[in-house]
Amino acid sequence: MNNRFYFDHAAATPVDEKVLKTMLPYMTDLFYNPSSPYEPAVRVRKDYEAAKHSIAKNLGVKPDEITMTAGATESINLAFNSVSGAVAISAIEHAAVLESAKKHKINWILVDKNGTITPNAVIKAIDDDVELISISIANNEIGTIQKIRDIATALQTIRQKRLARNIKRPIYLHTDASQGVGQIDINIPRLGVDMLTLNGGKIYGPKQTGLLYASSHIKISPLIVGGGQERSLRSGTENVAGVIGLAKALDISNNTRTSESNRLKLMRDKIENALLTNFPDAVISGNLKNRLNSNLHISFPNIDAERLIFRLEQYSMYVASGSACAANKGTRSHVLQAIDLPAELADGSLRITLGKLNKEENLDEAIKILVREISSEYERIKR
Amino acid sequence: MNNRFYFDHAAATPVDEKVLKTMLPYMTDLFYNPSSPYEPAVRVRKDYEAAKHSIAKNLGVKPDEITMTAGATESINLAFNSVSGAVAISAIEHAAVLESAKKHKINWILVDKNGTITPNAVIKAIDDDVELISISIANNEIGTIQKIRDIATALQTIRQKRLARNIKRPIYLHTDASQGVGQIDINIPRLGVDMLTLNGGKIYGPKQTGLLYASSHIKISPLIVGGGQERSLRSGTENVAGVIGLAKALDISNNTRTSESNRLKLMRDKIENALLTNFPDAVISGNLKNRLNSNLHISFPNIDAERLIFRLEQYSMYVASGSACAANKGTRSHVLQAIDLPAELADGSLRITLGKLNKEENLDEAIKILVREISSEYERIKR
Repeated sequence: MNNRFYFDHAAATPVDEKVLKTMLPYMTDLFYNPSSPYEPAVRVRKDYEAAKHSIAKNLGVKPDEITMTAGATESINLAFNSVSGAVAISAIEHAAVLESAKKHKINWILVDKNGTITPNAVIKAIDDDVELISISIANNEIGTIQKIRDIATALQTIRQKRLARNIKRPIYLHTDASQGVGQIDINIPRLGVDMLTLNGGKIYGPKQTGLLYASSHIKISPLIVGGGQERSLRSGTENVAGVIGLAKALDISNNTRTSESNRLKLMRDKIENALLTNFPDAVISGNLKNRLNSNLHISFPNIDAERLIFRLEQYSMYVASGSACAANKGTRSHVLQAIDLPAELADGSLRITLGKLNKEENLDEAIKILVREISSEYERIKR
Repeated sequence: MNNRFYFDHAAATPVDEKVLKTMLPYMTDLFYNPSSPYEPAVRVRKDYEAAKHSIAKNLGVKPDEITMTAGATESINLAFNSVSGAVAISAIEHAAVLESAKKHKINWILVDKNGTITPNAVIKAIDDDVELISISIANNEIGTIQKIRDIATALQTIRQKRLARNIKRPIYLHTDASQGVGQIDINIPRLGVDMLTLNGGKIYGPKQTGLLYASSHIKISPLIVGGGQERSLRSGTENVAGVIGLAKALDISNNTRTSESNRLKLMRDKIENALLTNFPDAVISGNLKNRLNSNLHISFPNIDAERLIFRLEQYSMYVASGSACAANKGTRSHVLQAIDLPAELADGSLRITLGKLNKEENLDEAIKILVREISSEYERIKR
């Protein structure tokens, strides 16, 4: 496949070849069940635990605060399953958060037109019923990065007030960091969160690998029970190859964060500038001062983004319109609705998300194709 | 690794090289999110659906009756999550069944000393509260195969009686077929079950792949909600490579069932005969007339099976004592307790499970090692 114009890294990433190399032995020669008693299986158990240790180190937490899951969606469900009180979320969260929240009373956190959630907006949404606040570290559609640390700090005040009023209900801050790894510092003590979700499939690791970090003072209620794996919080024979792959992917992401993030920013800005120069009516969404360097969310008034996507795919250029996560199509993005983007803009929105498959040397050609095809689509409308 | 004396195929199997070959492209070149709109992602969606179609065909059911899960444990949890009434299970079921059942009223089905569950024992355990009966198609420790078809037929009578008495509660038969694939006919219409669980990790497919079949008249209650994948019954970006691998593994298992099953029987019987000849006090567990051809569960009175396992691993021979599925060790097998195997036998039990890694040409050497090491262990006790 020719993937040099793959601009949908927020939807899926290929497994890094170094990651794949670490995984393969555990699918073939070292396939043992890590619960088996004989020496090579015990070694596999050690390798599995070492991978979890590496993940914990990269997050700045203890290995036994991490529960491996089959992807971010399960991780988010597990976080919500562990609280009984009300939850506070915003309307721009991922479907996994929105759907998990439905089993609870929901307090809505307001977002501004850039998709930013201020600590003040969070505080306003909290009453004595709220036990869990869940905010993505960065939005998967418009790339807005939230100041999780500031929100965590604001919550300390709430905690102290509850304590003073003898209200026993705890308050936990959960963040889905799936879209932030490799661009944002995800050291958990620095973020100040109580729970955190990661997704291997978005960071050049295997699909359906993920984890839930939960601070040791939180009692996790398992969704999946059985043989007692993962400290009885998530039963089922361990996905040894997958977890070892995820650990490697996270390690690479963290080690190359600054250089890769800067590289993506240069490319993103170049595309953005070219498109704005050629199409001055285009609108960029997201917080322009604080968004993922990989993300460009741009709306062309009155253009049909679906048509544009089909045009671009003729040149092996792959971009998203709205979020690719929702399996049910044909509906307008709930994120764009939440930030009040007018329908004529929302329907003409492209989400370009850059990543490892994109190289500076291919950028001029990519921009040429984009400008030409968007222009052609405008020509078609005028006729 | 030297795995010619790997005798623990019930605990884990390596990914078949043909299976791995079908999976790899979907981890690298064809890594796209199957929900993305552009052509190569649509092709990945088609390949994913084709894999589910192949699985359905091998099971004799419709593709939309199958929900892909991250392994058998999740599948079993999903089955139990979908009923609200009481459940009927036996004490020899897998931990995933025993633990899932705890959220319900449990009616216990009696098993005989061979681990056999008769249709009559099932009927006796059913009262008007029972909504789900879950019985493994073959026991993972002692290999006893259950006559699922006969049990399903007996349940028809219960259904008719409930209908006649105007009792609305449905009654569903679920079977975990994880240990049966490749040796037992798992055509679902012939089995007559309403729900069925499969596990990729036991049939030379990838770990943490599995599925729940549920007849289209059953309303499944999802454990994991979010983007709406798998007809909203199991959200999360699809494990494309994993499902394509599972489909291939199931196809191979079904196509080679008769020849492979016969091959395993010849080897199993040879080991069994040699051990019984050399150790006449040894006791074989399981239903000798109806057990998996891959399974030999043999107990040596007063021997310490754990010591024996360490002896055997010196010669790269890997066998299990009891089930390797339970992550918490040091406890006696609940299956052996349920079939009333005396403690002095249970503690000296080996589970030898044969599979693709075992070849007839290595058998004489394997038997020589087994006999020699068991004899040495007996010598040690006598001293």
